[in-house]
Amino acid sequence: MAIEMIDLAAGDAAIRLSPYCWRTKFALVHKGLPFDAKAWRFTDKAMLAPTGSARVPVIRDMDRDPSRWIADSWQIALYLDQTYPESPLMVGEPGRAMARLVASWCDTVLHPAIARFATLDIYDSIADIDRAYFRQSREQRFGVTLETFCADRRGARMAVHKLLLPFEQMLAEHPFAGGSAPSYADYALAGSLMWPHTIAKEPLLDDATAVGQWFQRMLDLHDGYGRKAPTVRDEKA
Amino acid sequence: MAIEMIDLAAGDAAIRLSPYCWRTKFALVHKGLPFDAKAWRFTDKAMLAPTGSARVPVIRDMDRDPSRWIADSWQIALYLDQTYPESPLMVGEPGRAMARLVASWCDTVLHPAIARFATLDIYDSIADIDRAYFRQSREQRFGVTLETFCADRRGARMAVHKLLLPFEQMLAEHPFAGGSAPSYADYALAGSLMWPHTIAKEPLLDDATAVGQWFQRMLDLHDGYGRKAPTVRDEKA
Repeated sequence: MAIEMIDLAAGDAAIRLSPYCWRTKFALVHKGLPFDAKAWRFTDKAMLAPTGSARVPVIRDMDRDPSRWIADSWQIALYLDQTYPESPLMVGEPGRAMARLVASWCDTVLHPAIARFATLDIYDSIADIDRAYFRQSREQRFGVTLETFCADRRGARMAVHKLLLPFEQMLAEHPFAGGSAPSYADYALAGSLMWPHTIAKEPLLDDATAVGQWFQRMLDLHDGYGRKAPTVRDEKA
Repeated sequence: MAIEMIDLAAGDAAIRLSPYCWRTKFALVHKGLPFDAKAWRFTDKAMLAPTGSARVPVIRDMDRDPSRWIADSWQIALYLDQTYPESPLMVGEPGRAMARLVASWCDTVLHPAIARFATLDIYDSIADIDRAYFRQSREQRFGVTLETFCADRRGARMAVHKLLLPFEQMLAEHPFAGGSAPSYADYALAGSLMWPHTIAKEPLLDDATAVGQWFQRMLDLHDGYGRKAPTVRDEKA
């Protein structure tokens, strides 16, 4: 394997939920780089210790420098474009600036809104060993119980749809944020949306919208890499 | 003059406040096209009637087809890039998609937040003839009096700063949304911010932030075109 990656898993190790890890995996399949995404759980400090990072994703490039772990999905994207310039994720500084804007917007605006929709489902699906840590850290962050934080799922879904309106307008006119082909801006947003896609018991997007149709295209890319991802809804079916 | 434009003016005709008109003026100076921006007031239906549009900006290209008025700042930007391909505002479909995203975000997310900061100042500065129309149409839109809508200026300013966080992160790493040089994404956001810049009695941005510093760069572009714009704060000084 060219790339070794550490990837957040649910209780079912086949279900991978982290939006940041999904960005990295989409970037790797975009580049055509073979990789091994090892399942990691929130509380497995031992597995992350050698990487020097407290968070996932982390990767190391076994073909280049197996001693160097690279953390942070944005730094990984920059590393991949610098090291493997074919099939760029971002074209030039304008491409990097716009991808950074979209990724930052996802991190700071979209994720808190998705959290209100999906956090209780995340709690239900993660490994038993992670549950106490997850509840305690999230209830501290949100200042309320998970049940209170997620009490209005319908309102949370509407809030996400409202936030996505600028993407709705853009994607009504262009197949991808990258124009006619996907760029890292697409993978950043799609990564964020893989989070509820894999873990939420109800769909977040509406397939009739431009964003919903774009997400279906994102799932189909690269031989349906995203579409093949197991989700909690498969299990229930 | 190559281009004739109709541009929203305050009571003092030298003060031009419309965010959409600013986008068009920045695009025209970016292209190096001479233009005449005629002062228009909200209630001057007669002046707009020949254009077929109910809103500004509208332009007509006197060198190409004086019989054709082009409305809507986004359509004008596309027209300018198509008709005058040198010094593109947007490079390729990726550039158009990203500029559309930023402009849509400004329209649907940023403008409602700026309105809470600036609407009462707008009311104070517009032409006497526009006041009754402005108050009535805005109070109907907001569902409260202008005074109630703008009661918490400090909170409104903080809300705008919070919304700008993704731009703050991106502009900490890149001089412009367009990378090393401005693109239409920059002009879209700068146009939105010229609205409070020209009309608000207090500054909206903080010059110590990356967005504040970027806005200063935007004011300096093209021989200080934005910086030369008269504002209500000049009058008070």
